[in-house]
Amino acid sequence: MTHNLALFTDLYELTMAQAYFDEGMTDDATFSLFVRRLPSQRNFLLACGLDSVLDYLENLHFAEDDLTYLVSLGKFSDHFLNHLQSFRFSGTVYAVPEGTPIFANEPILEIVAPVLEAQIIETFVMNQIHVQTVLSSKAQRVVMAANGRPVIDFGPRRMHGIDAALKAARAFYIGGVAATSNVLAGKLHQVPVAGTMAHSYIQAHDNEKEAFRSFIQLYPGTVLLVDTYDTLQGVRTVIELATTMGKQFNVSAVRLDSGDLLDLSRKVRGLLDQAGLGRVGIFASGGLNEEKITALVSAGAPIDGFGVGTSMGVSKDAPDLDIAYKLCEYAGRGRLKLSPGKPILPGRKQIFRMSENENDIRDVVAQADEQLPGRPLLEAVMRNGERLAAGRVELEAARAYAGRQTARLPDRIRAITPAEPPYPVEVSPELSRHQKEIKDRVQVV
Amino acid sequence: MTHNLALFTDLYELTMAQAYFDEGMTDDATFSLFVRRLPSQRNFLLACGLDSVLDYLENLHFAEDDLTYLVSLGKFSDHFLNHLQSFRFSGTVYAVPEGTPIFANEPILEIVAPVLEAQIIETFVMNQIHVQTVLSSKAQRVVMAANGRPVIDFGPRRMHGIDAALKAARAFYIGGVAATSNVLAGKLHQVPVAGTMAHSYIQAHDNEKEAFRSFIQLYPGTVLLVDTYDTLQGVRTVIELATTMGKQFNVSAVRLDSGDLLDLSRKVRGLLDQAGLGRVGIFASGGLNEEKITALVSAGAPIDGFGVGTSMGVSKDAPDLDIAYKLCEYAGRGRLKLSPGKPILPGRKQIFRMSENENDIRDVVAQADEQLPGRPLLEAVMRNGERLAAGRVELEAARAYAGRQTARLPDRIRAITPAEPPYPVEVSPELSRHQKEIKDRVQVV
Repeated sequence: MTHNLALFTDLYELTMAQAYFDEGMTDDATFSLFVRRLPSQRNFLLACGLDSVLDYLENLHFAEDDLTYLVSLGKFSDHFLNHLQSFRFSGTVYAVPEGTPIFANEPILEIVAPVLEAQIIETFVMNQIHVQTVLSSKAQRVVMAANGRPVIDFGPRRMHGIDAALKAARAFYIGGVAATSNVLAGKLHQVPVAGTMAHSYIQAHDNEKEAFRSFIQLYPGTVLLVDTYDTLQGVRTVIELATTMGKQFNVSAVRLDSGDLLDLSRKVRGLLDQAGLGRVGIFASGGLNEEKITALVSAGAPIDGFGVGTSMGVSKDAPDLDIAYKLCEYAGRGRLKLSPGKPILPGRKQIFRMSENENDIRDVVAQADEQLPGRPLLEAVMRNGERLAAGRVELEAARAYAGRQTARLPDRIRAITPAEPPYPVEVSPELSRHQKEIKDRVQVV
Repeated sequence: MTHNLALFTDLYELTMAQAYFDEGMTDDATFSLFVRRLPSQRNFLLACGLDSVLDYLENLHFAEDDLTYLVSLGKFSDHFLNHLQSFRFSGTVYAVPEGTPIFANEPILEIVAPVLEAQIIETFVMNQIHVQTVLSSKAQRVVMAANGRPVIDFGPRRMHGIDAALKAARAFYIGGVAATSNVLAGKLHQVPVAGTMAHSYIQAHDNEKEAFRSFIQLYPGTVLLVDTYDTLQGVRTVIELATTMGKQFNVSAVRLDSGDLLDLSRKVRGLLDQAGLGRVGIFASGGLNEEKITALVSAGAPIDGFGVGTSMGVSKDAPDLDIAYKLCEYAGRGRLKLSPGKPILPGRKQIFRMSENENDIRDVVAQADEQLPGRPLLEAVMRNGERLAAGRVELEAARAYAGRQTARLPDRIRAITPAEPPYPVEVSPELSRHQKEIKDRVQVV
């Protein structure tokens, strides 16, 4: 994204910012970003999106044409627009590393900055953490279902826009996906790229055999798509080519993209093995999700890898999270709201994750300055608007970290079925006491 | 989007393109973009995204660093990369105008271009038509439910990425939404922007009254958010300010964002009316969708406008479409595939929409050169890579067109509940005959 994204904000962020400015409200605010409730189909989430947030905060500024547009709205004073002209983000960000499993009401990040700054960034910060966490969490489930077989991202054509598809490829990789079909994501985010062939290529040739032969000659180790006309006939054609092409034939797999994948994969495996083509694998795609993959894997389908598109790409069963970015401290005083069903934990916080024999068993959300057993998950990643070393993590490291952290979770939490009981997350007695104090003190009128 | 988006493509598009290039396959291909089946919760779709597609096609080229990245993949010959260096889209595009209601198996657009060109653009074209059609179609339902009350887009924070949120604001506006909170969408797409205030502003002040008073002084016609601590108490504070501020008080509405909106809106209306504040409206938000809005409107809730975020922003009940971009002709010969459940209508086509007394009643999908009763929906919007006048439509015109076209649909189709019977779409006898001919002729082996 080379857009200047300062105006990627809800209008009210800017009108409130002007109000803070006019009222001389320049004190630091703490905002906490968290998910209120997990979707019923998620036992945990895999935090993702921090890198995009820090990149945005480092570069945030209002360009001349942004200010010109704001002038045209007739809501902003010259005095305030002058202030925006020199606006930079000067705050501090605490966050869990990308790839950290998190649960409801646990801060994914907390921002401490002059209230005007912390307010203006709300929309972008929520948008990016939301979509990337939605997608990495979904990918983790698909990867879990594939149980060691590689999963390839085939989703770009049906994801929600360009940015989602680019960020998804990265989020999926952190969640354990092996590669993406998205070439631009490969270029921009260094995600491995992969691909096979489409029906259109077969159709454009006069017959399937000619198409296969041409493609093999150019890409000897390719994967051949065999379902354009008739899957089993397609496989017989592949076998015939293996015979006639001899040593030139080095096809790595055939791809099934429609029909009963369990039944077809068994029949195809049989045909290939019978022809001495045990080295040719079977790759499956076509409307797959974690449930269908689990069913195939459990039934012992001889499938060596999965291409997953739409369901993972839009996180179809849970496309959104009840994510919130809430003021929890201003001018050194904890803040909350009392709207029904939407509680806030006041002040800056820390998550302590407790383990037993290398297995994580319980979290406690506490005040930031508490010292509790377990490892603290939130760390400073940006200070005074500058990214710290902890805020720079290589993609491969984030992926490895996500894998290790997920492996530490109880089996029932990592499973794709609803966990009973859910992972225990408690609020520390100190923090509860603080929350109650503030509640008692709120001056409604 | 100022990215160069040539690499926003699935890897196989480029490997197939190289194969076409090597094999000397330079003939024109026709690709058809259509939705195979409507989601069960949609009676029709509102086509959207054409403007982005034409913009992309006009500007498409491979930059030096794109080619450098492709070299690094080790799959492409110098000969082919040289060809990409001078690559431009030279084809012709036929499309239904943005804002046209469309149904399953009706082409939203058809592209005629050398097969290499038509292949490379698949991923971007599908991505943009998909997301924008998903979102405009969802918006139309929400607007229909609001039955004349304005709907404001509050979704940017939970949409899937920056591009989706920007395109959504435009797609929503075409679908009848009145304004967006997304400032950048206002700047880039000329969508009206709107907004109120957030809880954080109230919380950052020592009490609600002080926050309200400060905001009113800066924005006299503002909307005040009253549910931070207690909705009815918040409204009483607004009334008190109306009394003490006198003529200075010109607040346009209060916003309810939580709790039982029907019950609260009635009580709030009562309090405001009793205080002689009949001119202060009630605006509602908080987890709304078309079903909830229908329930509120049917129950006569005294609500004057709706802010709708996540549900519309991710099209939660139907986040994806079974959209396809399929080769249907190459080198002057109709093409199809035989994969189960995925039929293709061969050749270039036209949709004829028949009406009776200004009401649309039935569509026929025919061959492009047929002359049938009804108005043809597909028109040329780009020729030889250049956008035609029909491919340039102002946003306001597209919105007005969408409104008129939707109004012509039968009531059961425009309703948000499933239509029985669905809108009738037939295939012309000529086209059916052509399809059968090709099917009989396909040489599988």
